[in-house]
Formats: sequence, C-alpha cells, structure tokens
Amino acid sequence: MRGRLQRRCSTFISLIIKISLVLIFRFCSIAVSSVPGIEWVQRTFDLPPYKRGCHIITQQIYKAVPEIRNFRVGIAHIFVMHTSASLTINENASPDVPLDMEDALNKIAPEGHHYRHLDEGLDDMPAHVKSSIMGCSLSVPITAGRLNLGIWQGVWLNEHRDYGGSRRLCITIHGQC
Amino acid sequence: MRGRLQRRCSTFISLIIKISLVLIFRFCSIAVSSVPGIEWVQRTFDLPPYKRGCHIITQQIYKAVPEIRNFRVGIAHIFVMHTSASLTINENASPDVPLDMEDALNKIAPEGHHYRHLDEGLDDMPAHVKSSIMGCSLSVPITAGRLNLGIWQGVWLNEHRDYGGSRRLCITIHGQC
Amino acid sequence: MRGRLQRRCSTFISLIIKISLVLIFRFCSIAVSSVPGIEWVQRTFDLPPYKRGCHIITQQIYKAVPEIRNFRVGIAHIFVMHTSASLTINENASPDVPLDMEDALNKIAPEGHHYRHLDEGLDDMPAHVKSSIMGCSLSVPITAGRLNLGIWQGVWLNEHRDYGGSRRLCITIHGQC
Repeated sequence: MRGRLQRRCSTFISLIIKISLVLIFRFCSIAVSSVPGIEWVQRTFDLPPYKRGCHIITQQIYKAVPEIRNFRVGIAHIFVMHTSASLTINENASPDVPLDMEDALNKIAPEGHHYRHLDEGLDDMPAHVKSSIMGCSLSVPITAGRLNLGIWQGVWLNEHRDYGGSRRLCITIHGQC
Repeated sequence: MRGRLQRRCSTFISLIIKISLVLIFRFCSIAVSSVPGIEWVQRTFDLPPYKRGCHIITQQIYKAVPEIRNFRVGIAHIFVMHTSASLTINENASPDVPLDMEDALNKIAPEGHHYRHLDEGLDDMPAHVKSSIMGCSLSVPITAGRLNLGIWQGVWLNEHRDYGGSRRLCITIHGQC
Repeated sequence: MRGRLQRRCSTFISLIIKISLVLIFRFCSIAVSSVPGIEWVQRTFDLPPYKRGCHIITQQIYKAVPEIRNFRVGIAHIFVMHTSASLTINENASPDVPLDMEDALNKIAPEGHHYRHLDEGLDDMPAHVKSSIMGCSLSVPITAGRLNLGIWQGVWLNEHRDYGGSRRLCITIHGQC
C-alpha cells in the first residue's frame, strides 16, 4: 500500500518537474553551447502594447538578445506568436512611411460586414488577412555581431488590431561565435 | 579495345550510382548527425490533394517529421515546392477565418481576362500572385520538442488552383538535441 | 607627455584595425568551418541594375555562392538589403508570369498623390508597400548540393522603383557538408 503511494508520489513529482522544465524552456531564455563555436540562443519576451499601425522595433531586438554581438556570422529569426499582428522590414527614417503603409494595408484588406468572422469586431478579420500578407516571421543575416540590415532598413512590428495589447516575440539566434 | 569498354562501363555504372544517390537524397528523408548534439533532419513528402482554399496542416507536419520532439531548440523550415500554392501561419480555431481569407485573396488577386498568362485557365495567374503574396516557406522556432506556435496559431497550406492536385513539401529541421 | 601621445596613437591604430575588420566582414565573403562538417558561408554582393519589374536570378545566386554544391543538407538564406525591392519564388518558365505579376502588384499598391511620402517620386511609396508584401528574404532548402526548388520554381528579384539602381544581396548558407 505504502509502496504504491510512494510510486504515485514520485510519478507526480516527476510530472511536476517535467511541466516546470517545459514552462522554463518555453517562456525563458535558452542559451546552449555544447558544441564549441556553434551557438543557439532563444528568448521569448513580450513587447509593450502598441497602437494600431506600424512601429520600428530594431532596438528592442538588440535589447532582448544582446548576445547578437558575440556572433561572427549567423541568422536571427524573429517570430511573433499572434495571428493579428505581423513583422516586416522597411524604412527606418521617414515617419511618413509607416503611416502610409497602414493606410495601404487598410485599402488592401478593408473592414466591413462582408466577412463571416465578425465576433471580435470589424478590425479582427482584416487583421488576420494583413498578418498573412505581411508574415509572422523574419530571418535576418548576422555579420560581425550586428543584424546585417541595409542602411535604410529597420524591423517593424505591425499591430493590426485596434487594441491588440502586449505581443509576444520568440527570437532564435543561431550562428558561429 | 576491352580496356576502353571496361572504362566506359565503369563510367556508366558510376554515373548510375551518382544519379541514384541524388534521387535518394532529393526524394527521401535525410537525418544526419555527424556532430554530436547538432542535428539536421530533412524530409520531402506529398500532401494529399486539397480543394481550393486555406487548410490547417500543423498535425501533418508533426506526422511527417516526428523527430521534432528530440530538439531542445531549433528552427523548422517548411517549404512548398510549387508556384500556385502557398504556406502561412494563421488562426487554428474558427473555421470561418480560412473561408474569409480565401475570399479576401480572391479580391486582392481577382480572376479575369486582363492577364497575359491564361493558357492553364482563369485560376492560374491569380494563383501565382497569391503564392508570392503569401510566400512559399515558413520558419518556426522549435522549443522543448514542439513548434513554438502561439496559442491561436496553426500552419496553413493555401491551395490557389481549382484542381491543384497533390502538393510536395520539403521540411528541414535544424537544432540542438 | 610622450606616454599620453603613444597611448592615443595606439588607441587610434586599434580603432582603425577594428573598423577595417568590420568593413572586411560586412562587405566581403566569410567562409568559416571551425566545427568539422558544419559550415557557414556568407557573401554580400551587388546585382547589376534591373528595370522595374520581376526578374529571375536563380543562376546569379549559384554564381555568387558556388559553395552550395558542397552541402549535403542545409538552408540558403537570401536577403535584399533595400526597402523598395523584394525577393520571391515563382514561375521559372513562362515570360508572361513576371509581366502579369508586375501588373498585379501595381493594382494592389497603385501610384497616386494619396501618400504622405512623395519626396522621391510617385513610384517610391508603392515600392515600400510592395517590398513588405513580397518580403525581403527567402529561405530555400539545400539538398545534395542544390537549391531544392520545385521544377517550376525560380528565385525572383522584384525591382519596384523606376530607376532602383544596383541592389545588394547578402546570402548566408548553413548546413552540413
């Protein structure tokens, strides 16, 4: 009787440990380097809420994954874990470009009552369309410790909902140090 | 004379072996692990035919590459080897979202006689446009043996032809076990 | 006094060396292989100017990174370092498809005076929209020393400006040899 209880307890404890490990892996940073010179860094974090429109977040990425500077060559993969926001690379200088982009997207995927999926508001289904058109992930080359962006390129988060709230990003860096 | 024949025969045999190896590599699975801890898995497989529209295929990906569960951290790259179908990540719950997406794409790239490329039917050229707008590949972070998708995210195959037939995917998994 | 001058000189020299190294890394090719079997190759190069429209550049990629043939399995990442040109994968056979694609993009993001960002001409802001819709990067599986493209797939550079000039690509190849 006691033996069975002990077995159940140990099964329960190992389950708790397993779930905790999965949660730690899923929501915290991972930095593994068992092979000398080859590195994987992965970090999941939340951006503060942005208003509807397009926003430059290049510096937030450097802040979230400062290890980029250690990589001589590699790829940074940026992934937004939502279906009504998106990521793109575009102009980092003129503040008019994000505003014009938001207008252009509203013309390409206009709001209206012609959608089936209307429960969450008129801004919901167009947000799904814009998200798939723009894409939910980016891959950027890393060269000599920097994202190898062109002079005028910046990373944008596009918030397609009126009140989208905080958005979670998962950044995975892989390369040679 | 016999020497030349032998040389030709051996050249021919080595050519056959080379072509066979290329074919094996191209159409079968590859799982290489010469560096301990660092793994590449690549598998090419055919999806069953889908009707025109958007379809969730997340579970088919797990079935095709069950090795995902071995990776602590990595990237899954999913590639559709056609120019009139596409891949995207979007809503995995409401069945209305794929239907509305198909309608929205038909508005963005409508059928009509205004295209030059009309030989294969009215649905052909719009399919090429939709394929480039949505994209033919996805990169998804792997975390603790799972595709690290958001709660509402699923992988979609978008069939843009009326009768597109079976579609071939090449999935490449790379990461640390 | 002399000590301070020497220190300043050595600081200046080390700065020059640092800047040179960054420039060498950024604009030249990198081929690193400290881990046997696992390779990173990265090369930045300029395409000749293309006229506005869609152009197949698959062979230019093979020419720029001939090392692809050494990789048994891997991923080729192609990145255009500009915000008014883009990359996509589409039809490699019919010359009508790139022409129809250019027309379709002009309908999706038309020119006009309804944009704020008009300083550089009417073709400028639509080019930014098209760039984000199509995307500035591609990831293509490598299998047995080749880009594992479908039979009808080719890599396209889309020039969205009237006179875009030369465009810089950064190609990063990673895989197992």
